[in-house]
Amino acid sequence: MLNAKTEKKWDHRAADTAGRMAAAAQFIGAGKQVRAADTVALLEAIIRPGDIVNIEGNNQKQADFLAECLNKVDRAKVHDLHMVQSAVPLPAHLDLFENGIARKLDFAFGGPQAGRVAKFIRGGKLELGAIHTYLELFARYFLDLTPRVSLICAFKADRKGNLYTGFNTEDTPTIVEATKFRQGIVVAQVNEIVDTLPRVDIPADWIDAVIESPRPFFVEPLFTRDPALITNTQILLAMLCLKGIYAEYGVKRINHGIGFLTSAIELLLPTYGEELGLKGKACTHMILNPHPTMIPAIESGWVDTIHCFGGELGMENYVAARPDVFFTGPDGTLRSNRAFAQTAGHYALDMFIGGTLQIDKFGNSSTATASRVAGFGGAPNMGCDAKGRRHVTESWLKCGQEMPTLNQVLGDMPRGKRLVVQGVETFGEGRAPVFVDRLDAWELAKNAKLDLPPVMIYGDDLTHVVTEEGIAYLNRCPDIDSRMAALRAVAGYTELGLAAKPEETKRLREAGIVRTPEDLGVNRNRADRSLLAARSIRDLVTWSGGLYNPPARFRNW
Amino acid sequence: MLNAKTEKKWDHRAADTAGRMAAAAQFIGAGKQVRAADTVALLEAIIRPGDIVNIEGNNQKQADFLAECLNKVDRAKVHDLHMVQSAVPLPAHLDLFENGIARKLDFAFGGPQAGRVAKFIRGGKLELGAIHTYLELFARYFLDLTPRVSLICAFKADRKGNLYTGFNTEDTPTIVEATKFRQGIVVAQVNEIVDTLPRVDIPADWIDAVIESPRPFFVEPLFTRDPALITNTQILLAMLCLKGIYAEYGVKRINHGIGFLTSAIELLLPTYGEELGLKGKACTHMILNPHPTMIPAIESGWVDTIHCFGGELGMENYVAARPDVFFTGPDGTLRSNRAFAQTAGHYALDMFIGGTLQIDKFGNSSTATASRVAGFGGAPNMGCDAKGRRHVTESWLKCGQEMPTLNQVLGDMPRGKRLVVQGVETFGEGRAPVFVDRLDAWELAKNAKLDLPPVMIYGDDLTHVVTEEGIAYLNRCPDIDSRMAALRAVAGYTELGLAAKPEETKRLREAGIVRTPEDLGVNRNRADRSLLAARSIRDLVTWSGGLYNPPARFRNW
Repeated sequence: MLNAKTEKKWDHRAADTAGRMAAAAQFIGAGKQVRAADTVALLEAIIRPGDIVNIEGNNQKQADFLAECLNKVDRAKVHDLHMVQSAVPLPAHLDLFENGIARKLDFAFGGPQAGRVAKFIRGGKLELGAIHTYLELFARYFLDLTPRVSLICAFKADRKGNLYTGFNTEDTPTIVEATKFRQGIVVAQVNEIVDTLPRVDIPADWIDAVIESPRPFFVEPLFTRDPALITNTQILLAMLCLKGIYAEYGVKRINHGIGFLTSAIELLLPTYGEELGLKGKACTHMILNPHPTMIPAIESGWVDTIHCFGGELGMENYVAARPDVFFTGPDGTLRSNRAFAQTAGHYALDMFIGGTLQIDKFGNSSTATASRVAGFGGAPNMGCDAKGRRHVTESWLKCGQEMPTLNQVLGDMPRGKRLVVQGVETFGEGRAPVFVDRLDAWELAKNAKLDLPPVMIYGDDLTHVVTEEGIAYLNRCPDIDSRMAALRAVAGYTELGLAAKPEETKRLREAGIVRTPEDLGVNRNRADRSLLAARSIRDLVTWSGGLYNPPARFRNW
Repeated sequence: MLNAKTEKKWDHRAADTAGRMAAAAQFIGAGKQVRAADTVALLEAIIRPGDIVNIEGNNQKQADFLAECLNKVDRAKVHDLHMVQSAVPLPAHLDLFENGIARKLDFAFGGPQAGRVAKFIRGGKLELGAIHTYLELFARYFLDLTPRVSLICAFKADRKGNLYTGFNTEDTPTIVEATKFRQGIVVAQVNEIVDTLPRVDIPADWIDAVIESPRPFFVEPLFTRDPALITNTQILLAMLCLKGIYAEYGVKRINHGIGFLTSAIELLLPTYGEELGLKGKACTHMILNPHPTMIPAIESGWVDTIHCFGGELGMENYVAARPDVFFTGPDGTLRSNRAFAQTAGHYALDMFIGGTLQIDKFGNSSTATASRVAGFGGAPNMGCDAKGRRHVTESWLKCGQEMPTLNQVLGDMPRGKRLVVQGVETFGEGRAPVFVDRLDAWELAKNAKLDLPPVMIYGDDLTHVVTEEGIAYLNRCPDIDSRMAALRAVAGYTELGLAAKPEETKRLREAGIVRTPEDLGVNRNRADRSLLAARSIRDLVTWSGGLYNPPARFRNW
């Protein structure tokens, strides 16, 4: 039965890497340094046609110099690359496909280039692998989508090639580990090469080339919301959330998605939240970027712990001055880490709350439109029931106990469930109805040749929907028909909402499956901007004692 | 509305750490080195009553010297610790509770101490926080269970305090990052302090003290199964799995749980698997420790990629010689990483297959018994439907498409589902029936005061059960009644199996919900040890060309 031992080579990858690095050796000096002017030549030496390549870039920091240099390579030498990266928000990311340098894309977040992604798919310029949630894409880096070459960014390198990524550590450790420990090649652009780093975030052993880029890497302040733009309706929704969900379930471990509703909730904590007696009972532990609108709640002593996916421009000094709350290093600055924050977001949170563009009649929701392949970032990872979870918290257990459908799948076995909340106004951006018969995601799937409609949160994961009409407690529904009725009951004057039957809604209210502001004792007349703990970016700066340093575009005073 | 700014301190943790480190300074020399003889005094200086403490230890490597030293501290100075750690397999881990040094435990895997955990809970010596799956516990390190002090282990340190964890990197980077970047204290025991490390796995910046321990850290070869002990029934089950599941769904991305069944499957790949034409179509990408029983399949060219949770004693040289398959560093040795392997295990796998001690009539399964708090390690994380997953593979899509129940929760929206397979003989260890009316986990929950019965895999996540009677395709069941009938149909002569009705089983077979070996065309007479590619540990050594170096206890020739 034993095979004769044949001579087989088992180091193709390592040998191939050695060959590439030999070709690149002429550009790499002491401490792995490469002159910025040699970057294009370096990339031509280390990248081969068809390679799986990662350009670091998420919804925040970007290895933008390396992305631009990759666009300048000789496409006779470098073409048909398979890009695997968290996000493609820069024009340069899509130019690679326009220029024939890249062919296939696996990603998690599109941002401003979402329309181009869809257009390129239709035009045959871009083959879409799949849309992932961040952690899912990271997972595949260690199995079937390992980068051959990764182009990353850091604040500083020392003269040996150690890196300091600090506040914006984000995806870097994950990308580097997957690439370097599969005998791949890692190139870093850094803002500065120095003698001594504040701390080592990535060991020099893991890096092959370091380039001091001509300008600092780009960072987008994606999580900053100006309190001046929060509306009274958003404040009403925030009050409903706090009274009908945060207080009702005593939710301590939370992620807030991006948006004005969650900013409103954050700014109501020190006012309406304290009135409800929630301090110390809700929002004590958060997985969250350093949202500026969290400053009043943090200053008021609401928060025990925040772990961050990434940094947020302008929050550097504030975070460094609050080490009891944030994860900071021996040097005093934040260490963000998207992989670990998403892991905690999946397994350690009791609630995810966010918004969406559309919710269908069954409760499936998506931000996809017919012509934009947007991706969902972290929402699917946090906005789903973590089925592998085994530890119990009060709110998780209560949410599961309320489910009359659980015995249809588990018999008499009890289990909890994460709260997954969508807060939306019934008519959203451009007065488009949020509640729809069928998601635009179906149309996008057709247009972009996707295997499945891209759903952000599936109906069986969604537990609560909050609108200006009230809250639908979907977890309390005994079947899909009552779930559909509960959605109609809070869908307002949308076509779906107009199909609600008053008698049915009355029964749902009596059963506690739907609750209006009046049922909850939330006074609509109090939903007013005077309830916000801060009403402007300037107020946030004041709350922070001058530590928050908002980016120029938010300095409107 | 703005509060008057009050003087508040925000660096309690950092200041407290500085105080402890000042007290410990007398024991810490150049390069953060501490003499082994000073370890107990060091621990007394840096640990305070009530601290959250992690002793690195999983189902493989153990910071055993530090665990023993912690048992020797003055309990007037150090007591009521809250231990948060992957596993408690060493007597020293439980001695801490016996000795009054520790009070509370949050963990993932009990191993040989599972009985003591239960006994101590009943006796009031141990307060159980929760049983977690590994990744879930890691998640909480970054939110609400952050270690104040972590006691870790590594192969080597250099004279600056950089660490080499290599083959057994496992949990170390995760524990260290959570602890050190929340201003905690990290102490490392190392086998050796050297001038130059093979590579840096953990930067010195992240470590506070390094101790050259009197003996190398303990490692358990938990994933080694001697092919000589594989039975013909296990081979039959393995044949059923390969033909009825691996081939049926074309499953490429797989984790094999520990056990003789999965070892049998691994050893059938180059024989029965090739006969079925599965090479290149199944088992190409695996999240798996370096199982010795994978050697024949690897040598036969079945496997593209394996990423490892940890190392496996004796497999060091083999893995280093197969870098095209494994994740190895610039120094040529494996870098395992439990957090990333479990992340890939959750999000990138199409199938998890393992065994269990009990399955209840609804399909909920557990390895818990009435008097052992065992924990489940990685099984719940990989053996559940990853609801946040958004990428499509053929087998995942097929498994979802076969589910007639999907429209009851999603309406017309399609979705895939991970294959979660339990392979069991109907009577297991000690001839105890595996199929039971009610899990012993209920009794344990009562005995150990748990909030919920500890279920390893819930019925709604389990898609297939394989026994010597055949396969129950639970994903194809239209409701819980048919699921219960399908389980009875493969439950053999257990009490549950004897309640099966022949007419019902016939209908299930016709519907393809139950398939016997005969239905599948699997010839029971061929289920014989001659089908195994290796029949002994010695055969595995031969297959490896002498690279596999089995631990002494497996050298039985």
